[in-house]
Amino acid sequence: MQQQQQQLKDFKFKKVLQNSAETQTLVLLGYFEDETKEAILIFKKKPFLDEYKNNLNKIINQNKYFENDIFTRYNIELQNDEWNEVDLQTIYPATQKLINKYTKCDSIIVVETPEIYNSIVKKYIDEVKLNSLQWLYNILEGKAEQERILYQNQDLHTGFIILPDYKFNDFTNTQQLYLLAITQRRDIQSLRDLDGTHIELLENILKITEQTIQEKFKIHKNKIRAYIHYHPTYYHLHIHFTHIEVQESSMNCDRSHPLHQVIFNLKKDPQYYKNTVLMYSLQSNNPLYSQLKQITEQQ
Amino acid sequence: MQQQQQQLKDFKFKKVLQNSAETQTLVLLGYFEDETKEAILIFKKKPFLDEYKNNLNKIINQNKYFENDIFTRYNIELQNDEWNEVDLQTIYPATQKLINKYTKCDSIIVVETPEIYNSIVKKYIDEVKLNSLQWLYNILEGKAEQERILYQNQDLHTGFIILPDYKFNDFTNTQQLYLLAITQRRDIQSLRDLDGTHIELLENILKITEQTIQEKFKIHKNKIRAYIHYHPTYYHLHIHFTHIEVQESSMNCDRSHPLHQVIFNLKKDPQYYKNTVLMYSLQSNNPLYSQLKQITEQQ
Repeated sequence: MQQQQQQLKDFKFKKVLQNSAETQTLVLLGYFEDETKEAILIFKKKPFLDEYKNNLNKIINQNKYFENDIFTRYNIELQNDEWNEVDLQTIYPATQKLINKYTKCDSIIVVETPEIYNSIVKKYIDEVKLNSLQWLYNILEGKAEQERILYQNQDLHTGFIILPDYKFNDFTNTQQLYLLAITQRRDIQSLRDLDGTHIELLENILKITEQTIQEKFKIHKNKIRAYIHYHPTYYHLHIHFTHIEVQESSMNCDRSHPLHQVIFNLKKDPQYYKNTVLMYSLQSNNPLYSQLKQITEQQ
Repeated sequence: MQQQQQQLKDFKFKKVLQNSAETQTLVLLGYFEDETKEAILIFKKKPFLDEYKNNLNKIINQNKYFENDIFTRYNIELQNDEWNEVDLQTIYPATQKLINKYTKCDSIIVVETPEIYNSIVKKYIDEVKLNSLQWLYNILEGKAEQERILYQNQDLHTGFIILPDYKFNDFTNTQQLYLLAITQRRDIQSLRDLDGTHIELLENILKITEQTIQEKFKIHKNKIRAYIHYHPTYYHLHIHFTHIEVQESSMNCDRSHPLHQVIFNLKKDPQYYKNTVLMYSLQSNNPLYSQLKQITEQQ
């Protein structure tokens, strides 16, 4: 620890990888003695605690910069104590992959027509799928993470499992509930593959997952949103169930499709997702980026 | 100012109205001398500045709590300076309406069927609309905020205006671009009212607003998402246009419908939005809450 502390003071700055006012995160790239081994520092402001209400006397500096009727605004500074703590994560030595992960990407809005899907996107998904789903098959086949499974039905056609998302690790904090329902069948890669023959599966997943949440967490279904990502993180059908209090940028309308809406659309037209346009944001670290960027520039 | 500073030290705490880890905001209710005049204090952590990279020597306390391979995590404290500033807004004396606004609400997920819309929601919208749109008509009629308008076409049937949202006030910071396109016609209250006869209007708004953004802000349409809120804040058709970098909880799939998807659905079925289910979250301070809560509990 002594050694790490000294290193931190010796940090030589190279580049700001990211600075988000949204998440209040500052990410720096640099190095210590050895210039060839890079280090990432991730600073994040800590949330307030309710207890801070008792510490108003710790305001040591107060600078008013706005006043209008009943509204007044200040910059305030507080004595060094828990009000001022910052979370710092260091990664050292950092791999290029991790540097990429923390580097702010360019991104674009894609309006994916069926033609774009069939000519470009589908081929990419088929390739990705071949290489990257073994970890998931291990879970479905009972070889990994079995102690985390909340429900399972092993029927290879109609079955699915319910698993907590890794972000939901404190089960006492049910307002952060985040579960995934993952199908046993392996032939549905994304929203685009869904058709009228899958309505029963989707309705069954919705019903049983809501029941499981009610039984295990005592949360009524009117507190739960269910949605499907397009594009998903991995191309094997899974459905997100989150508590209404959970807020994440990944559930915005660039990416998330409410399950009720999906079922409605399929009932109305079994081929809805083969024929629709789908709007999403795409980051430059996605292999599809350069091809689709060119298309959006011509659209 | 002297007087206000003294008051802040004299603040008597009554209640935590809200504490959001998401937005890092703590809202307290209390009073000063006079118990009948309530005060709201809104604390918000300030974002990092890029310049902080030069201030690593200001770390005065460093407490490691996690270490695994190349990953290490610390709580750090910094010398009192800009790293530790907190934004404080005070509202005094606060009205009950403002206290409600800052009080964390209960909320529920509603899956609104056409039956629920026709039997309950439509009546509410008709009532609200009667009382609350004069401010908007003032803008459309040229009586207010004219200097803010970026584009206008005054045709009462096909026309619309483009206005920056109040959150977008620094035009040099185009990554925060947030515009609203507001129709001149007054007969479209929400998404539910849209039908096949409105496709031309919607396509026209999309095209002209994207052109306006390109001309005035040099931003290509592949950086812009366009979407419609259901429920909207006010019941008069308006479309949100935001830069891809803007992130707000109001653009999540509980509330936002991509304009491209809306146009696709109307082309496919002119009556789509009369017949579909619409999922949304509803807060307890909404007059519809108690009726719809009862329905969701029976669904």
